[in-house]
Amino acid sequence: MTQPPFVFDHWASAHQQRVEEVLSRTLPSEGTLPGHLHEAMRYAVLGGGKRVRALLSYAAAELAGASPIAADASAAAVELIHAFSLVHDDMPCMDDDDLRRGKPSCHKQYDDATALLVGDALQSQAFECLASTSAPQALKQVQVLATATGSRGMCGGQSIDLQSTGKLLSREALQTMHQYKTGALIEAAALLGAYAADHTHQQLITTLEQYSQHMGLAFQVVDDILDATADTQTLGKTAGKDALQEKSTYVSLLGLEEAKALVNTLYAQTLQLLASFGPQADPLRGIAKFICERPF
Amino acid sequence: MTQPPFVFDHWASAHQQRVEEVLSRTLPSEGTLPGHLHEAMRYAVLGGGKRVRALLSYAAAELAGASPIAADASAAAVELIHAFSLVHDDMPCMDDDDLRRGKPSCHKQYDDATALLVGDALQSQAFECLASTSAPQALKQVQVLATATGSRGMCGGQSIDLQSTGKLLSREALQTMHQYKTGALIEAAALLGAYAADHTHQQLITTLEQYSQHMGLAFQVVDDILDATADTQTLGKTAGKDALQEKSTYVSLLGLEEAKALVNTLYAQTLQLLASFGPQADPLRGIAKFICERPF
Repeated sequence: MTQPPFVFDHWASAHQQRVEEVLSRTLPSEGTLPGHLHEAMRYAVLGGGKRVRALLSYAAAELAGASPIAADASAAAVELIHAFSLVHDDMPCMDDDDLRRGKPSCHKQYDDATALLVGDALQSQAFECLASTSAPQALKQVQVLATATGSRGMCGGQSIDLQSTGKLLSREALQTMHQYKTGALIEAAALLGAYAADHTHQQLITTLEQYSQHMGLAFQVVDDILDATADTQTLGKTAGKDALQEKSTYVSLLGLEEAKALVNTLYAQTLQLLASFGPQADPLRGIAKFICERPF
Repeated sequence: MTQPPFVFDHWASAHQQRVEEVLSRTLPSEGTLPGHLHEAMRYAVLGGGKRVRALLSYAAAELAGASPIAADASAAAVELIHAFSLVHDDMPCMDDDDLRRGKPSCHKQYDDATALLVGDALQSQAFECLASTSAPQALKQVQVLATATGSRGMCGGQSIDLQSTGKLLSREALQTMHQYKTGALIEAAALLGAYAADHTHQQLITTLEQYSQHMGLAFQVVDDILDATADTQTLGKTAGKDALQEKSTYVSLLGLEEAKALVNTLYAQTLQLLASFGPQADPLRGIAKFICERPF
């Protein structure tokens, strides 16, 4: 009997729905004290987003031989961290953005103080989520996620970004900033999925690190292309912000055509990286295609 | 040969110095990218504070038979969480306080965006710190600290506090708020110290939970008394804020004399709780005395 052909869209929507249910179970209900905060946390996390990081966790888990059940905590934890970063990034003292995932951002729907606490509490929830599994490699997962989130990861990238606004960055400096700001968490998403297995070979980790570095870069270049070319309604967030804030982007640095060519190169290299794997790498291939072929 | 008598002041200053060194080693240097963020994180954490939570970790570790080395990560982690909460609490959208530990608060010394990122990154650093020990009960420590920090702990308490300002709270509601806001982290500090041992008896955990609940309450009542009676210079933070902000406090609720009597009762009950232990409980006795006898 042959396996039915892998259809990424089916796989993705099944796993998007899966992580949505896990997140809904993980976040305390609005009836749990303090109800106001829990309502705002659920508002910030549920019912939106492409869940790319969760998909990466599930896809890496599949490659590592871990079940979706084993990867649920990884997928939820990386989405909680991502949601926390969006809530804080949108605040007036940061990007000051009123729109997120097509609806009012958290501090607009509630207020600044609530948004601050929502972000803080979502970060704690991510680590609580990982620690409550007692899986063999759960402590390793905590370590990877904490490093990717903190000053030498996502938060550090935000800081570099703030310090860079209005400055002309070299391509190398831009790449470093994005490696911290978005690349670190994308890599953590994949590694957490792999560590959801009882044991993980170092060679698999190395492959996933390379995969994530390519995808992290591609993701950012595509984001810059979309910010420069798509409209606000299509994005579900404010478009054209980069130019308005005089930020260095891959589009401002390379031009639109060369930025598109870079995405194509990264996609080809990523498929090459996965060439020796069988169908258990199909979800990772599908995610690469999804990231690199977002409409532009 | 008899043991020399236990002198709490010596023990406390030795362990305050110890955690200061651990924190300084744990926080990335100002020369590590991103230097601006690391400088601000070190500013927010180092060189200040009584380190009560770290002392609780070391004291509980001693009772549980764990060495100070084993408890270093616990002590540092709880101080990192405490420092993060102070940085965020002082921000304009929360308490809007310019002064902390006798110097400009983090957002005054730097700016709001930096303070936001400092708090976020300090929280991640706390979990990274615990996870990097690979101690037998490290995952349990992550779980306890994450729960105590998040929406059903410290962040939740802040939310309840925000929702309560200007309202007259019952004593029960006030106690619930403080159990979340400060009690949860004080309890976590003690439990993390106990879990620094390779194994921990449930009976010890129960005793430490009761001890912490008494101390958490006493700590808050003393804080309310000091806010009402001491001056800003003595406190190292703005005095008289509670009355100004029309917050319910133990002083506004019970009156000054009854508040002082409550502290004395809690102290006596705490000593009773530790009566069956020998000299290995002396640090916990000393901390109780220190908390309950802060000058007022």
